[in-house]
Amino acid sequence: MYGQISKITAVAGQRAALAKILIDGTGRLPGCLSYVVAADSGEADALWVTEVWESQASHQASLQLPAVQAAIAKGRPLIAGFSNRTETVPIGGHGLIAAAKA
Amino acid sequence: MYGQISKITAVAGQRAALAKILIDGTGRLPGCLSYVVAADSGEADALWVTEVWESQASHQASLQLPAVQAAIAKGRPLIAGFSNRTETVPIGGHGLIAAAKA
Repeated sequence: MYGQISKITAVAGQRAALAKILIDGTGRLPGCLSYVVAADSGEADALWVTEVWESQASHQASLQLPAVQAAIAKGRPLIAGFSNRTETVPIGGHGLIAAAKA
Repeated sequence: MYGQISKITAVAGQRAALAKILIDGTGRLPGCLSYVVAADSGEADALWVTEVWESQASHQASLQLPAVQAAIAKGRPLIAGFSNRTETVPIGGHGLIAAAKA
């Protein structure tokens, strides 16, 4: 498995709009086992995105999908910055679900 | 929803053993929507735990469950430290599954 944890800071006041785009655009993608968008409790504009993929290859491949490309194009103007990015090797737990195959 | 992202550094060489305890001890708990244990790709002893609960109350309640108390007791000697803890308000995504009710 392959994972990422990253913080995305939205342009002031745009966090909810950005979260919606991220959630809508990156739903049940091939190889995606978990993709959660969460608001930081202490920072008004910060989101955390935690992802688990079957492999780094499936994550990479997702970036080429039209739905994801469209979400990136739509979301980019609402993003002030990225930070705290960590790559992980997920080991296990609860809530890892294979999405539909392409 | 209520979420936490936190980094747990294991005692040297004990990461896999600690991960197993965390995964076994905190499986399908009431109110737990996601609980993923992942190894940090760049740090040999570091784990990331990302959690989503129905509410902060369900997370708090889980800490009193015998299975979780047992996992905490078993895991504590394998933990060198906690860091990077962030509380979140999960908004949505893929991989949020209601566990069995108590």
